[in-house]
Amino acid sequence: MGIDIDIDIDKATGGATVLKQERALHTRHALVRSAAEVFERHGYVRAKLTEISAGAGVSPGALHFHFENKAAVAATVQAVAAESLRRAARTATRRPDLDPLRRLTDASYALAERLRQDVVARAGSRLSGDEACRTEVDLGAEWRACVHGLLTEAAARDLLAGGVSRADATASVVAATTGLEVLGRTDPEWLSPETLTRVWRVTLPRLAAPGALSRLPPGPGA
Amino acid sequence: MGIDIDIDIDKATGGATVLKQERALHTRHALVRSAAEVFERHGYVRAKLTEISAGAGVSPGALHFHFENKAAVAATVQAVAAESLRRAARTATRRPDLDPLRRLTDASYALAERLRQDVVARAGSRLSGDEACRTEVDLGAEWRACVHGLLTEAAARDLLAGGVSRADATASVVAATTGLEVLGRTDPEWLSPETLTRVWRVTLPRLAAPGALSRLPPGPGA
Repeated sequence: MGIDIDIDIDKATGGATVLKQERALHTRHALVRSAAEVFERHGYVRAKLTEISAGAGVSPGALHFHFENKAAVAATVQAVAAESLRRAARTATRRPDLDPLRRLTDASYALAERLRQDVVARAGSRLSGDEACRTEVDLGAEWRACVHGLLTEAAARDLLAGGVSRADATASVVAATTGLEVLGRTDPEWLSPETLTRVWRVTLPRLAAPGALSRLPPGPGA
Repeated sequence: MGIDIDIDIDKATGGATVLKQERALHTRHALVRSAAEVFERHGYVRAKLTEISAGAGVSPGALHFHFENKAAVAATVQAVAAESLRRAARTATRRPDLDPLRRLTDASYALAERLRQDVVARAGSRLSGDEACRTEVDLGAEWRACVHGLLTEAAARDLLAGGVSRADATASVVAATTGLEVLGRTDPEWLSPETLTRVWRVTLPRLAAPGALSRLPPGPGA
């Protein structure tokens, strides 16, 4: 019976610990989301920690339990955004059954949708270009490398149209997609599948060799 | 002789006033340029007035003689940038002898060059998109209206290629040029004529009707 009681106590304590961890995780998520909203509204420098904790429905003390200072909050927003955006890009680009131009357009739709729907992705993406809170995360550089890699593969497989160099293609795609991301910060319509399709409808037929194009419907990936 | 002396005194006073005005104008120019450099380095919120006056080689008091506060400095940087960029765009677009697509590409080269060469244009352009110091100047909106106007004219004159709507064309050109402007803030190479030509080489042949294209060399305007 003594054993039973011990087990019961253990179970009760374990349950309480799990509950506490869950609550802590929930608070942390709420803080990251609130921080993203505040960073998006005011920018990094003017964002106030009190507004972030209030937005998450917790005390300033609870925020400080999770984050040492504003830089730590911003670094976490960037890290969470990076994880979310990298996952979206990976899902689209790691498809050996699809050709590289199709993977490129699929990745652009996936990233735009993530940015449009998710304030943490959007705020983190913006923070990673803000010299006031530089971290090691540089999402712009990661995207440029991704575009360059896929277009290099397309060039190697003779999928690029004649008269268009890999450098021309990379500059165009990077410029257009970077523009959409920045314009989408103030007007989410720029990140809609419809707008992205407008841009690909102009760009893609010039990038792709005639044979490749028939397999590349300019529209959201299936 | 009394008259001669009077005239001499008038001349001397007039000369001193002109000299004083010239010096004030020179100081004001130096302050605007230094402010642009400081805004570009630190962003609006973190920019310090003492660094701006020091950069112009004047005292903080001299800065306050010209500008009431940081918002007034930023508003002036934006106004000077707007004037400079509008002049560059006007020179390119007010050419009734050239077709609207050629005027569009010419304007893009002129604006990119202005942004690349002139720190005030660059800083003012960036400030006009910064919610921390909104003024009535919205250079992004002006450029979008300019692109839209020229492409509307091109569509009306049957210069757009079949299969490309005016909305497709506008979205592509606005996205790509906005991207170049933003990328050029950290790497001026994105604003070079070479990079712009890469982008136009991909975009233009898809925008222009076959007949129009032969008259549209994708390169800096003559």
